[in-house]
Amino acid sequence: MQTVAVIGATGAVGQEIVKLLEKRNFPLRKLRLFASSRSLGKTMSFQGNALALEILSEDALRTIDLAFFAAGSKVSLEWIPKAKKHGALCIDSSSAFRMDQAVPLVIPEINKAALEKHQGLIASPNCAATVLLLPLAPLHQAFQAKRIVLSTYQAASGGGAELLKHLIEETRSVLEERSHPTHLPFPYAFNLFPHTSALQENGYVDEELKMLHETRKILNDEMLQLSATCIRVPVLRAHSVSANIEFHRSFTLEEARELVQHAPGVTLFEDRGGNRFPTPHDATSQDNVLCGRLRLDPSQPKTLELWAVGDQLLKGAALNAVQIGEECIRECLS
Amino acid sequence: MQTVAVIGATGAVGQEIVKLLEKRNFPLRKLRLFASSRSLGKTMSFQGNALALEILSEDALRTIDLAFFAAGSKVSLEWIPKAKKHGALCIDSSSAFRMDQAVPLVIPEINKAALEKHQGLIASPNCAATVLLLPLAPLHQAFQAKRIVLSTYQAASGGGAELLKHLIEETRSVLEERSHPTHLPFPYAFNLFPHTSALQENGYVDEELKMLHETRKILNDEMLQLSATCIRVPVLRAHSVSANIEFHRSFTLEEARELVQHAPGVTLFEDRGGNRFPTPHDATSQDNVLCGRLRLDPSQPKTLELWAVGDQLLKGAALNAVQIGEECIRECLS
Repeated sequence: MQTVAVIGATGAVGQEIVKLLEKRNFPLRKLRLFASSRSLGKTMSFQGNALALEILSEDALRTIDLAFFAAGSKVSLEWIPKAKKHGALCIDSSSAFRMDQAVPLVIPEINKAALEKHQGLIASPNCAATVLLLPLAPLHQAFQAKRIVLSTYQAASGGGAELLKHLIEETRSVLEERSHPTHLPFPYAFNLFPHTSALQENGYVDEELKMLHETRKILNDEMLQLSATCIRVPVLRAHSVSANIEFHRSFTLEEARELVQHAPGVTLFEDRGGNRFPTPHDATSQDNVLCGRLRLDPSQPKTLELWAVGDQLLKGAALNAVQIGEECIRECLS
Repeated sequence: MQTVAVIGATGAVGQEIVKLLEKRNFPLRKLRLFASSRSLGKTMSFQGNALALEILSEDALRTIDLAFFAAGSKVSLEWIPKAKKHGALCIDSSSAFRMDQAVPLVIPEINKAALEKHQGLIASPNCAATVLLLPLAPLHQAFQAKRIVLSTYQAASGGGAELLKHLIEETRSVLEERSHPTHLPFPYAFNLFPHTSALQENGYVDEELKMLHETRKILNDEMLQLSATCIRVPVLRAHSVSANIEFHRSFTLEEARELVQHAPGVTLFEDRGGNRFPTPHDATSQDNVLCGRLRLDPSQPKTLELWAVGDQLLKGAALNAVQIGEECIRECLS
C-alpha cells in the first residue's frame, strides 16, 4: 500500500488506529493524519516520527490509496464519496453507510468473504454488535439463532474521547465535592443511563436498532429476531453484553462451550471454581472478546445465556477496521 | 408498639431503617439499636437523642415487641428463632428465611394479604427482585406473565456499607494514581462484574436464582419462568433492571403504560420528547421505583420491554421492611 490516511486521527478511535498501524507493522509507504482545524500545527507520533496533523481536502484525497474514516458519520457522509471518486479504498468506522446494500459490513473473523464485493467502501460494525457477534457467529452457524434478548453495558469511550474525559473529570469533581460543568442532562459519575441516540417511534433508540440490523446483515439472516436495551455505564473503554439466545436446533452446553472456545477472536474466560468471569477491566487492551457465564436457560428449550466483554476501542472499532485493511491487502488487492 | 429494635443498626440498611423510623414517625415507645461489639460505646441519633449501640442478647430480646433484622443471613439464622421464642415479631431483610413456606415474603403494595398468615416472622425480598416486581405486579395481574429475561445493573450498596466505601476509596485512588488495597479479586473503580454470590451447578449464581424464586413466591405463580443475569456496576445506591416480559394475554402499549402509571410504589418516568428516562441518580433517595422505556418487543408477540430503577437501600430494603412493620401495626395487631 502506498499512502494510507487516518481521518479523525485525534479522536478516541483514530488514535487507536494509528497505534495499531504501528504495532501491527501495517504495510504502508506513507501515513497521513487528518483532523479538524483545532489540531493544525500539532503532530502525532508514528514509528518514531512526528507526523503533522492536516486538514482534509480534495487535493489531499488524490494522493491516498487507503483511508480509515474515524471522524463520525457527518465527516464520512461528506468525504467518503469524494475519496472513492479519487480512487481511495475507504474503511469506515461510522454508521453512515453500514446498512447500504452496496457496502459490505465486515468482521473479518465472521464474514470476510463479503469483502470481495466491495465498491471502494467497507464498513466496520457497531462496537456493541461486534462484542455480541464474535461469540454468536459460530453458535449461529451450528444451531441457527432464532431470537436474541440483549442488554448492554456500554463504556464511555463509545461516546468519544470527550465523553471519556468527561466521565473522569466529573468523577474527580464528585469525589472532591467540587461543582463541575454539566455535559449531559444528568450526572455520569457513579451513574448509568439509557443510550441517548435518537428515540424512534417504536420506543427503541437507534443504537438498539443498529444491534438488530447489523447483526442480521453480518450473519446474513433477515429472519433473526433481536430486541436490545442499550445502557451507558461509568466504565472507561470496554463494552459488556448480556445475551439470551434462542436457537432453532437443540444443543448441549458442552457443544456451545466448545464452539465459543474455538471461535476466532474470542477467549473463553470461565473460572467456575473461582467464580471469576470477564469484566471490562479484563478486556481492556485485549484484542479478543472475552466470553463467559455460558449456561442453558431452564426457562425455555434450546436457549443459551452468555456474557461477553470486549475493548470498545480495539475489536469494537479500531482493531476491526485495521483488520479489514489487512484483509483487503491480502485479498482484494492480491 | 412498645419497644422496637433494629439489629444491624450501623449497616447500610440498618442506618436507613433508623432514619425511616424517625422520618415516618413510626409508632413506638422505645427504640433499641443493636450492632457488633465494634460499635460498643458508640451512639446513633434518633429523634434528637443519642441512643447507645448495644450487643444483642437473649435478655435484650425479652423486652422487644418488634425487631427489624438487617445484619445479614448469619445473624438472622442465629437470632430470629430466639426472638420469636420471646414473642418478638421479626421483620427480616436477609435472605435467610425468604423461601421458607411458613414465612410470608411481602411487598406491601403487592401482597400484603400474605401478612395475615405470619407466625412471628415476615421476610422482605431481594432488592433487585423488588425493583422488578413493583412495575411487574399489575402487569402480571392483567396479562399474566409467562417468561421474563432479566439483566440487572446492581449498585455497590447491595454489597453492604463496606463495598460502598470501597468503591469510593478505590475510585479516588485510581484518579490520584495511588495504589490501593484490594478488596475484590478484580478492580471495582470504573469496572463492573457478574454478581459474586455462590455459583450453582446450573451456571446461575444465587442472586439470579433469588430473582426467580422470590418473584414466583410474591406473585404466587409457580409456573412463571425467569432467567436473570445479575451484574454489579460502579453505582452507589440504586439498582436498575432491564426486563423483557412475555405475557399469556395480548395487550396494547397504552394498556401496559396505564397499569404502570397507576402501580402503587411506581413512578412512570418517560420523557420521550426529551429522550430522558430513569437513571440511578434520579432514583436515589426516592421512595418509588422509577419505570420507563416501555415498548412492545417486535421480536415476539405479547412481549414488553421495560427499564426500572429503584433506591436499593430504600424500597429495595429499609423502606420495604418499615412498610411491613407499619402494615403489621395496622392489620396484624389491630
